Amino acid sequence: MTDITSSWNTPRIAILATVTSALTLTLGLLVGRFAISRGGHQNGVFLAGAPARLMDTEDLDVASKIMDGIDPARVEENLRELTRKPHIAGRTADFELVDFIKTRFLQYGLQVQITPYDVLLSYPSDEVPNTVRLLDGKENVLYDSRKDESKLSNAPGVVKPFHAFSPAGLVEGQLVYAGYGRVEDYDWLKSHNIDVTGHLVIVKYGKMFRGDKVDIAQTNGAAGILMYTDPAEFTGMKGGDDRVYPSTWWLPPDGVQRGTVFTGEGDPLTPGYPANDLAYRYKEDDVSLPKIPSHPIGYGAAENIMKHLDGLKVPEDSDWQGGMNISYRTGPGFLVPSWKIQLNVTSRNQRAKVENVFGIIKGNIEPDRYVLLGNHRDAWIYGALDPSTGTAAMLEIARTMGELVKSGDWRPRRTIIFCSWGAEEYGHFGSAEWVEQYVATIRERAVAYINMDVPVIGNDTLHVDATPLMHKLAYETAKKVPNPNPSERAAGRPFVYDTWLRVEPWLDSDKQSKRIPKIGPLGSGSDYAPLLQRAGVTSLDLWYAVDPTLYDVQWYALYHTEYEVFDIYKSQFDKDFEYLSAVARFSAEVTRSLADSLLLPLSPADYSRGLLDILHILDTNHGTVLRENLDNFEKLEKVIKEFGKDVEEFEHRLKTLDSNNPFIARQINDQMVLLERAFLVPAGLPQRPLKKHILFAENANNRYAGSSFPGLGDLLFQIELDPDPRKRWERVRQHFSAILHTIQSAGATLREVSKFMLETM
Amino acid sequence: MTDITSSWNTPRIAILATVTSALTLTLGLLVGRFAISRGGHQNGVFLAGAPARLMDTEDLDVASKIMDGIDPARVEENLRELTRKPHIAGRTADFELVDFIKTRFLQYGLQVQITPYDVLLSYPSDEVPNTVRLLDGKENVLYDSRKDESKLSNAPGVVKPFHAFSPAGLVEGQLVYAGYGRVEDYDWLKSHNIDVTGHLVIVKYGKMFRGDKVDIAQTNGAAGILMYTDPAEFTGMKGGDDRVYPSTWWLPPDGVQRGTVFTGEGDPLTPGYPANDLAYRYKEDDVSLPKIPSHPIGYGAAENIMKHLDGLKVPEDSDWQGGMNISYRTGPGFLVPSWKIQLNVTSRNQRAKVENVFGIIKGNIEPDRYVLLGNHRDAWIYGALDPSTGTAAMLEIARTMGELVKSGDWRPRRTIIFCSWGAEEYGHFGSAEWVEQYVATIRERAVAYINMDVPVIGNDTLHVDATPLMHKLAYETAKKVPNPNPSERAAGRPFVYDTWLRVEPWLDSDKQSKRIPKIGPLGSGSDYAPLLQRAGVTSLDLWYAVDPTLYDVQWYALYHTEYEVFDIYKSQFDKDFEYLSAVARFSAEVTRSLADSLLLPLSPADYSRGLLDILHILDTNHGTVLRENLDNFEKLEKVIKEFGKDVEEFEHRLKTLDSNNPFIARQINDQMVLLERAFLVPAGLPQRPLKKHILFAENANNRYAGSSFPGLGDLLFQIELDPDPRKRWERVRQHFSAILHTIQSAGATLREVSKFMLETM
Repeated sequence: MTDITSSWNTPRIAILATVTSALTLTLGLLVGRFAISRGGHQNGVFLAGAPARLMDTEDLDVASKIMDGIDPARVEENLRELTRKPHIAGRTADFELVDFIKTRFLQYGLQVQITPYDVLLSYPSDEVPNTVRLLDGKENVLYDSRKDESKLSNAPGVVKPFHAFSPAGLVEGQLVYAGYGRVEDYDWLKSHNIDVTGHLVIVKYGKMFRGDKVDIAQTNGAAGILMYTDPAEFTGMKGGDDRVYPSTWWLPPDGVQRGTVFTGEGDPLTPGYPANDLAYRYKEDDVSLPKIPSHPIGYGAAENIMKHLDGLKVPEDSDWQGGMNISYRTGPGFLVPSWKIQLNVTSRNQRAKVENVFGIIKGNIEPDRYVLLGNHRDAWIYGALDPSTGTAAMLEIARTMGELVKSGDWRPRRTIIFCSWGAEEYGHFGSAEWVEQYVATIRERAVAYINMDVPVIGNDTLHVDATPLMHKLAYETAKKVPNPNPSERAAGRPFVYDTWLRVEPWLDSDKQSKRIPKIGPLGSGSDYAPLLQRAGVTSLDLWYAVDPTLYDVQWYALYHTEYEVFDIYKSQFDKDFEYLSAVARFSAEVTRSLADSLLLPLSPADYSRGLLDILHILDTNHGTVLRENLDNFEKLEKVIKEFGKDVEEFEHRLKTLDSNNPFIARQINDQMVLLERAFLVPAGLPQRPLKKHILFAENANNRYAGSSFPGLGDLLFQIELDPDPRKRWERVRQHFSAILHTIQSAGATLREVSKFMLETM
Repeated sequence: MTDITSSWNTPRIAILATVTSALTLTLGLLVGRFAISRGGHQNGVFLAGAPARLMDTEDLDVASKIMDGIDPARVEENLRELTRKPHIAGRTADFELVDFIKTRFLQYGLQVQITPYDVLLSYPSDEVPNTVRLLDGKENVLYDSRKDESKLSNAPGVVKPFHAFSPAGLVEGQLVYAGYGRVEDYDWLKSHNIDVTGHLVIVKYGKMFRGDKVDIAQTNGAAGILMYTDPAEFTGMKGGDDRVYPSTWWLPPDGVQRGTVFTGEGDPLTPGYPANDLAYRYKEDDVSLPKIPSHPIGYGAAENIMKHLDGLKVPEDSDWQGGMNISYRTGPGFLVPSWKIQLNVTSRNQRAKVENVFGIIKGNIEPDRYVLLGNHRDAWIYGALDPSTGTAAMLEIARTMGELVKSGDWRPRRTIIFCSWGAEEYGHFGSAEWVEQYVATIRERAVAYINMDVPVIGNDTLHVDATPLMHKLAYETAKKVPNPNPSERAAGRPFVYDTWLRVEPWLDSDKQSKRIPKIGPLGSGSDYAPLLQRAGVTSLDLWYAVDPTLYDVQWYALYHTEYEVFDIYKSQFDKDFEYLSAVARFSAEVTRSLADSLLLPLSPADYSRGLLDILHILDTNHGTVLRENLDNFEKLEKVIKEFGKDVEEFEHRLKTLDSNNPFIARQINDQMVLLERAFLVPAGLPQRPLKKHILFAENANNRYAGSSFPGLGDLLFQIELDPDPRKRWERVRQHFSAILHTIQSAGATLREVSKFMLETM
């Protein structure tokens, strides 16, 4: 997972869904109707030799067989195999895993396809390490960050700490502490007459994607940037626990979070096109790679440097304070004025091959409709959580389904494709290149995508981020999956849904007492991003999470460190692999349901409600300024309500459709699938032509992450920084019109197919 | 029809199709297979109450009934009604025709939808006319172009000569004759030290779109531009015939060709989005409207001005010579040095409502698949040929089909939509706005588009421009339509195909003796352009044409003049309306076949051959320079051949598919329809983001029109003009890679659906 912030650490958008909606009832009735047909053609009377299942409804016994088939012991064994060696993208161990996964898929009876790409990656130098040094100004090294690195770092294949795509370079000078490195952090420094121009900055990880921190530092004139993990957020100190790995899941002082600082998506040299031998490659200088050196360090090293900082004392009540046993000061300059900080980055960008591996179960009735379940394969080091838990679970789902197919008991109605993506950590390279190569095919055929990148980071509850179309299916499925937590089961919560509702409750939009579990919006944290934002494939991402009221933690503490190893996962997260198996069962059932249902279990009604809630948030955050500057702000509510009517009429038509016509079933399904595509705007978001989903994307600047209408959020953010924003307001007006149009035309896709046009302006 | 040049007056691309291809045989076999099923479920045994026709093959009796039903007398009556009044877009008579067409559609039993848009149009002033004057330099008017205008110009509603979207303005100065106004014409002037900067230019109509002539004049620094129709191309003088309208179809001296000089497509103020009340509207200054005044005159007026020109004598053997009885000279300057030319344009741009009218026959098996047949409704004046013949024919097709449906004998399998577009003459406004509004729906559901803008301009042969997917269907259909020409019938050519083959023969790619009729590529001359180039809808345009070996004529001489009236059409083009009826029968049968066939009659094999022929043309025209500057030119042949293999395998699979599964029939059809979409490149052509078809578009500059790969043509054209083209070659390399990728990924859409990925780079 490359960027966890946007979906995890920001206020969730209150997209609301009622479980017992009118649509559920409708679909129930409808499935009943279709089911009548079942007996009618079991003897093949439809056409001579016709397959008996042509208009079958799904066989729910299969659901149980698959869920029961998921075996925690096999999941554990998978994880052990997957984490034997460090397996960064583009190097030998990664290709060994390609073979391993391919072999497993073939054993399970799946078809296999492998798609290679030639992309630009980035590796630390094997000869001259990256270093951060404190110098006394007379050539003496007072402190070297490498002395505090992990003992594990010398194991074969372990990649030393680095930021992928940091340019190489040696920069030396004064140091400024800039909090989390957000735009407002630099504003605060400026308001105290602290200019970072030409200095190095040091910032905490957290709140936003690390690539944006580099970008903002660069924009503010910094010569280089260091990032460290503050113990306040990466250890249990606030709960009074001072133990760290390996006795707990907390981060030790020498743990360093690696990661990419590339803010784009897909191979940097071939934007918009697949990185194969047909591609035009830009020069590195001509694409948006970071321009200043950047490097991550642990809090052990950070403390040894920052304790010497001079300058302004950080206010006691600000979030610039942290958990190190020092007085947090801004700099620039050290207590001994001659001292300097030196950052030497020796990493290199390098072309390398990366591969995606696909395991395919061909559908027998609608083989040209694809249900995609995927996860990446590459890890910065061992990747026991990120991503190998996901792959371990996916392999077990593939095995269970594959063996059921081999037994002759089942073949899904639609095609199921398991996706093992390459080089996600660098910026979703494998999935983005694949979408770039096959977008015409994917847009025509993909029904949905389920992503399971880091499926377990805690034991407290299932957590789901999804597009509204998938909400109902997520709820229904969570009600079928047995609760992996014994104490929750003992407390009368037999299914994961029950605990989810307890831990992440969400008031309904009309603030009635009825509650449903929260579902978050999708940012750009993993491989669903290119599928959703470029191809319009409705998507769901999930993991077992910690209860956010119990821990003040960002994501999980060992994220992207070399301590993400099998033993810590087993000892600290999931001793019996029951949690990972629960997520596997959930994902398997979502996949099966999408692949097998005669009518797809998607929910346009939740999109209608979701839009109203997004509007509410937009109005709360920006309504005043938008009303002052736009003369058509009220039209947004109007088009959303009209969209709601289109959804209602669609539901109404479901009740009266011709249940004898397979082409009508296909039409309805196509309408539901197309709805997500209809939210793509062909020209892309402002200044981001490859991001086309008008509702769901990360914000280009993180500050408004989660405020939705990401293009609007970006433009409004820029306006706040611009002394003469008149031209920018024109761009807001343009994009606002694009939003209005997109919602209106999305409604058209749901209408009765011979009356889809609006007759008014 | 706004721009006839690209498809008419340029060398046709030799996209080859063999009529008796392997695919034809394959489909024949296949239809046979599916047909077997017919008896099997006629008693509704498929599912209780199932419609009997679910998997029916088409009923070919219906084809005869529709073709026989087309009644020339009714077509004539339609044309008479449609041409009673001048009906420019956005004014009363146009709205009266909206009502007329709506009423007719309703009478015929069709559903009707009307889509309004609020667009920017352009009209000449009613108070102060546009004038071109020759002045003696002392305030005396020596000649005024208006004295030579038609007597008809005073009839109510006749729009005086103008160029739509010319800016208003009075410009005065010297005059330079610049031939056809092509880029190379200005180059020739420069090579003779004639600089047009600050002068007015006068150019002949012909060779290219008039909007490009304005654009090129503007780029060369001209202060204003006049366009005239030279008698060499607009009268019969070369054949020794000096008679003109009304005794022949040739242009009289006072006939003036109106037309738009806007080079964009769709409402200029709302590019990319529908011009409704949600739209953001740019200011006129901020969009690409022409910046210099422009005006059309007849050859009567031109002669009275140009005979006084001084300067260089035009070379005898150049195409700058024309048919006026003067010595053609370049200027600048008149024989009397004090004389000047004055152009006063008083036209105004003005927001107006335009409407599309749709008549819909809902399909009974696959209602969510649309076959579109359309034509625009607006005319500069009476529009007897352009566009009202097309509308007259379309209404008769709608009547015939509608009455067959009303009788209960037939309902098409798929939905048929008749489209009466508004404001095509200004730049395809109605169709472009509609595509902008519903592109998500259209891309999902449109099967094909048939355009019949000016269906008869001669009596010699059917002429077809089409995308390769439609070639086979065009040939097959032409073999069914009776020949409207009695002498051709008497000569043993009973069907339009036979005459087509005689008049427009085309050698097969292997230069064997077997011949097929020519089919041209589609430029951007009419409403198919937005459907094909933005939504990827495979398209066909057609008309009955003159034999190009008999006449040295560009399009038809009375084009866009006020002499395009009912009587001249009847007396000079089609006395008994047999030719228009023949085109109507052809279009009706193409439409019916697309709407009724279980498997669509589209031809991927012709795309494979077409690509090879386009490659051949590219290599012939630019192979040397491309090989010098690109290191991967040979890959184009490679990807085209691989595409050919994908087509062959697709055909092979057709033979073995599961004929009992309606979902498989749908899949095959979707693959064929998607193939055209797959040639769209999401980012659009270089500098033309709204034109997305990588193979078929007009060239931005006309000089390479018809050379195909339009983006490549544009870039190569610019290179020739650039003293330092290194950067431009980078853009060529980028776009060339985009072409390679697009062809490769198009092949993927045809593959077996569970094995669509390439496993090599």
